[in-house]
Amino acid sequence: MEYLVMLPGPTNVPDRVMNAMLTHIINHRSDDFRRLYKTIVEKTQRVFQTQNDIVLLTTSGTGAVEASVINMIRKNDKAIIPVNGEFGTRLADLIDSWGGHAIRVTAPFGQNPQYSEIEDAFDRNKDIKAVYAVYNETSTGTTLRYMDKLSQLCSDRGAFFIADAVSILGGDELPVDKWNIDICVTASQKALAAPPGVSPMSISSRAKKHMQANPPPTQYLNLKRYFKYYEENFETPFTPALPLFNAFSEALDMVLEEGLDKRIARHKACADAFYAGLDAMGLSPFARQDARSNVVIAINYIPGMDDKKFRGLLSQQFRILIAGGFGDLKGKVFRIGSMGEVSKYHVMRTLSSIASVMNVLGLKVSPDAGSIALKRLESAI
Amino acid sequence: MEYLVMLPGPTNVPDRVMNAMLTHIINHRSDDFRRLYKTIVEKTQRVFQTQNDIVLLTTSGTGAVEASVINMIRKNDKAIIPVNGEFGTRLADLIDSWGGHAIRVTAPFGQNPQYSEIEDAFDRNKDIKAVYAVYNETSTGTTLRYMDKLSQLCSDRGAFFIADAVSILGGDELPVDKWNIDICVTASQKALAAPPGVSPMSISSRAKKHMQANPPPTQYLNLKRYFKYYEENFETPFTPALPLFNAFSEALDMVLEEGLDKRIARHKACADAFYAGLDAMGLSPFARQDARSNVVIAINYIPGMDDKKFRGLLSQQFRILIAGGFGDLKGKVFRIGSMGEVSKYHVMRTLSSIASVMNVLGLKVSPDAGSIALKRLESAI
Repeated sequence: MEYLVMLPGPTNVPDRVMNAMLTHIINHRSDDFRRLYKTIVEKTQRVFQTQNDIVLLTTSGTGAVEASVINMIRKNDKAIIPVNGEFGTRLADLIDSWGGHAIRVTAPFGQNPQYSEIEDAFDRNKDIKAVYAVYNETSTGTTLRYMDKLSQLCSDRGAFFIADAVSILGGDELPVDKWNIDICVTASQKALAAPPGVSPMSISSRAKKHMQANPPPTQYLNLKRYFKYYEENFETPFTPALPLFNAFSEALDMVLEEGLDKRIARHKACADAFYAGLDAMGLSPFARQDARSNVVIAINYIPGMDDKKFRGLLSQQFRILIAGGFGDLKGKVFRIGSMGEVSKYHVMRTLSSIASVMNVLGLKVSPDAGSIALKRLESAI
Repeated sequence: MEYLVMLPGPTNVPDRVMNAMLTHIINHRSDDFRRLYKTIVEKTQRVFQTQNDIVLLTTSGTGAVEASVINMIRKNDKAIIPVNGEFGTRLADLIDSWGGHAIRVTAPFGQNPQYSEIEDAFDRNKDIKAVYAVYNETSTGTTLRYMDKLSQLCSDRGAFFIADAVSILGGDELPVDKWNIDICVTASQKALAAPPGVSPMSISSRAKKHMQANPPPTQYLNLKRYFKYYEENFETPFTPALPLFNAFSEALDMVLEEGLDKRIARHKACADAFYAGLDAMGLSPFARQDARSNVVIAINYIPGMDDKKFRGLLSQQFRILIAGGFGDLKGKVFRIGSMGEVSKYHVMRTLSSIASVMNVLGLKVSPDAGSIALKRLESAI
């Protein structure tokens, strides 16, 4: 039996998108493919709100995040990076191991680093080449709420601005050109509700120039090659995951048919309902109010809620998948992916199932949670 | 309308395998996934004829080939590589750009380098760390016919033996353990007849030990991480392309149901029929007799056969996809992928369509080609 997939990726994939994978195999060196790839690029530009070049990698999100580092960072290059969770940590580690110098501006998990500390980091260090920002920290359910100010700061200081938007693009505000984002990275299986395995990224013309002059010593994630193949032939340099390209194209259609504004409002309303409903059950978010994500809802466990038992019951008895915590947060939080297809139905079924499981575990839960959440949803969408 | 996909990858994908992509989305951090991944690993071991560790990457073949380099080669490491086509050239270039030193043993395209010259390369160079062999050179339709001897040579000289078997595994002999192959790389969309986007590789215990002690400064293709996640949890470190994993699993079932020996015999018979039928049409293989591939049939164009016109007619009028030449061979050869599902039907439909297109182009073709090919096929499979 099918699961309700409330993970922070992969998510539920609409049947339309799944079925697109059955499109017959074509030659990836032919006009059939060129048409497909061009339309994906154009639609991705609209969803990213950018005129920048688009590259679609056959990788999961980590592959595209890595491409944003190895095509940009050279030995001893300094990059500032706010770090408040697993994915920020991982990205900063990659910058260091690749030979760059990551300047970490940290905050306790669940909070965003102070914006002023990023300014200080610029003041204290000369020649900052780039700021890498994990826009939504999937591991803790926090969203960096000063991307616009960070964009201005990067412009003022002449640094590249790079956004890891893997778990958020399509589910919250992210106007790439307005925010002057030089590289914006996302993945198919998060708020865009396609299957996992392809990852789109946008690259500004100045970032592109830099990459073309400084290609990495590798091939698979070498973006110079992607630019060349696209410019000469509208192709990818290596065999693309055709079924996933078709599915991603269909998923983009669904985003554009709904409209970005409506989609973002829907995500916000569902997140609000989740937070309100869970609060009524006595469950509090891990993230501080001002940092809370609209796409990943991370919730503290309370005594009596064992991670394995809780998520096991939810999965086996209610066929609902949610995620546990990462690293130090293992066993301390659970995480709901409220993204992609997420709707009233997903929120209400998930909340009522959580309430039932809490009852099974012997915990008293207010009967109001459902009606509180529903009220929020009905006033919003 | 559907194409008959006679490309050297992607190939025709059986409906069973395509439909497996519709399997519902699961949590890639759950027992559901662990079961799937374990069964893929076990089946891949049987198809690779190995007890070695298996890693399944969410990349096309180039990603896995790159993983075989960046996890093995360190600064100034010497590697011998036979080069007689595009993919050998590309692999040697990668070894060099990554900081290693590729010792190229070359031959004119269409021929295999002399085995004795590889011995000479060992004699002339101390401390050869590895031999990288492109078993089937997709760009020219040649297969390296001394893999067993090369294996023995590597054992005698204490070098790692690494096989790029991207376009051949499942379509010709490749007993990984018998040939002591330390790293064997293939891709889903070639002779295994799955959709493109995942690439399996096998790694011997001594190669694994080496990799664990010398991980590359990157994350996505860092095999140490893959070993760790598999050993601790039977998981992949990064989100796997779930629908492609399901399809690949189904494709492996089909390989094992048919039986490797029968599958290889079928490939050989289809290749023989192609060569014989095309010969009867006055078309000669690009590869020298002793180097001819059973999976990629590269054929010289004759006067009157324009690549664009010929392949265009074949694609538009007969719905058959074949490939053109690479690099210097562009316009000079066409290439038929005779792999995966390939059967009597595929061979006969392709040959008769080629004959028709040649007629359309005003070329006289012997009417015997079909019956010659059919006779070969009927005596063999």
